[in-house]
Amino acid sequence: MTLNDSSTRDKQTPLDYRSAGVDIDAGEEAKNRLKRLVESTFTAGTRGAFGGFGGMFKIPSGYQSPLLVASADGVGTKIKVAIEADRHDTIGHCLVNHCTNDILVQGAEPLFFLDYVAFGKLIPSVVEGVVAGVAAGCRENSCALIGGETAEMPGVYTPPDYDLAGFIVGIVEEAHVLGSARVQSGDALIALASNGLHTNGYSLARRIVSERLELDMHQPFPDIPGSSVADVLLKVHRSYLTALHPVLDGVHAMAHITGGGLPGNLNRALPTHLDAFVDASTWTIPTEFQVLQYAGVVSHAEMFRAFNMGVGMVVIAPQDQVARVIARAKVCDIAAWELGRVGAGSGDVQIDGKVM
Amino acid sequence: MTLNDSSTRDKQTPLDYRSAGVDIDAGEEAKNRLKRLVESTFTAGTRGAFGGFGGMFKIPSGYQSPLLVASADGVGTKIKVAIEADRHDTIGHCLVNHCTNDILVQGAEPLFFLDYVAFGKLIPSVVEGVVAGVAAGCRENSCALIGGETAEMPGVYTPPDYDLAGFIVGIVEEAHVLGSARVQSGDALIALASNGLHTNGYSLARRIVSERLELDMHQPFPDIPGSSVADVLLKVHRSYLTALHPVLDGVHAMAHITGGGLPGNLNRALPTHLDAFVDASTWTIPTEFQVLQYAGVVSHAEMFRAFNMGVGMVVIAPQDQVARVIARAKVCDIAAWELGRVGAGSGDVQIDGKVM
Repeated sequence: MTLNDSSTRDKQTPLDYRSAGVDIDAGEEAKNRLKRLVESTFTAGTRGAFGGFGGMFKIPSGYQSPLLVASADGVGTKIKVAIEADRHDTIGHCLVNHCTNDILVQGAEPLFFLDYVAFGKLIPSVVEGVVAGVAAGCRENSCALIGGETAEMPGVYTPPDYDLAGFIVGIVEEAHVLGSARVQSGDALIALASNGLHTNGYSLARRIVSERLELDMHQPFPDIPGSSVADVLLKVHRSYLTALHPVLDGVHAMAHITGGGLPGNLNRALPTHLDAFVDASTWTIPTEFQVLQYAGVVSHAEMFRAFNMGVGMVVIAPQDQVARVIARAKVCDIAAWELGRVGAGSGDVQIDGKVM
Repeated sequence: MTLNDSSTRDKQTPLDYRSAGVDIDAGEEAKNRLKRLVESTFTAGTRGAFGGFGGMFKIPSGYQSPLLVASADGVGTKIKVAIEADRHDTIGHCLVNHCTNDILVQGAEPLFFLDYVAFGKLIPSVVEGVVAGVAAGCRENSCALIGGETAEMPGVYTPPDYDLAGFIVGIVEEAHVLGSARVQSGDALIALASNGLHTNGYSLARRIVSERLELDMHQPFPDIPGSSVADVLLKVHRSYLTALHPVLDGVHAMAHITGGGLPGNLNRALPTHLDAFVDASTWTIPTEFQVLQYAGVVSHAEMFRAFNMGVGMVVIAPQDQVARVIARAKVCDIAAWELGRVGAGSGDVQIDGKVM
């Protein structure tokens, strides 16, 4: 066809954006609902108003040589649990806490956050729920929500599916950056307890729950009285910022236990000449992991790779800091214990004497 | 069932992460391919190596009162064009350029970028293509790619579908922030030409192409000799950073023409007591928009809302800056022209005398 060929054109109805699956009015309604939530997170550094092109933030003063630390993440298939349970106001909180922990391990504290939410069919009440969770996480971590994108993408997401990603920027004095280079032989490994699965292992967990346990989201979770499957699987990913920020001066390195589990994350906090020796007898694996392992006939090694197994964060610190870190975590109602030691090795994580 | 109920357990095969649809080896392979691409974007501010928990960046010195400017975005359903055309190495470039323009309108220049790519089934060669595009965009805009997340989410995305989001952080001296408060009655509107559809209007464009023109991605695009549908629809979203950065000191405000078109974006650069008067006779609507309008029987007003119609960026500047801005754009091979004027009004955009 060419511009001058009108043979079939006149028979057809006009197309517009709405008929192509994009509802601009629903987008506007969603935006109005978000304004109040977003503004509830604003901190002293926030500049400009809701709805500008780019969000603005004033760099705090008082640093000698400030480094920005940034991280991007999603919530994996935990989003499917939220969708199936029709409970949308917690995964945003999980996401902010996850991102906060990811930069905390380098010693950074959050400045601001942006989110990306993409739908097949934009439902304003769901957007509002998601952003309410993001805003709650931002308030918990004193992190301003200065921007974001809400996209309607018919054909990419099948309603009611959607996805959520987030981006955090924090700040740390360059001389205070934590990491593997600081770690010494003899350092202690201190575990801080997770709150359930956090945001990892959901593809496996969902398969076990649906195919092996044959449970839907609203049925009771086995062996956890009073909790539905959704209650257990949607527990909010814990932020360790408040618990650890006051003791960072005594810490050498940290590992946020996410995808890859203890063996796949603790190794990132080790220099190549040291191993982490984890003693699995120091804690009891929480019930939800035991249920999933049993029902899925999952090997011990696979469980430790796919799930956090009850350990959300590992702090590596000198022995004389152990009591201080544990006491501080307990002030924040987070169980903490000495998980093991750092010793001669080659950058590996050993659990009960076995390289994982 | 409880932990002690083994009635059905022994008949079942063990589950692991791979059987649940997550392939950790493919994830590792993808990561290795990315390292080289990511490192090609590193700038003087980059700190730390590829693969850390959070990306680190040293704030440049020399600012009196630096503001960070951040933006999050996706590429909308342009991603479906890339998927259907099986051409994955340009949309990442579009995304970085889009984000760069979003913070440029406030006067900021990019520091760093992070991406989020989520797949139903992770294909390392596709990840590599996507990140190659992101890296090309980062190099074009002197913006370090310091982090990102590649997620495999079976059940959310139907292979070969995937989604891509990005996040940029830039910097601007607080006293140099551009925006509506600087705009004066009598200021000129200067258009910089777009390069095709950029990243907006794709849900409508794809529907017109497939349902009305009945073309697939590999057939010739009507009235654009030598170009396939994919060639036209995947043209790279243009960055205006190089063209406009040297003349920002003469600019009052800018509008990046994205979703909502000229009427939905130029208004964001206006104070409430001024209107923008656009003269549509100052340019010829590019052929691809004419073809889409004709084939889709789309109204004039709807076209201007859904598409950029040939205008990628509008600069608002005093009359004595018009020749300078246009000359600078032409040095960068970008067509530029005086599009109209700012005058008394109420924050609206008028095209040919009609509020849109």
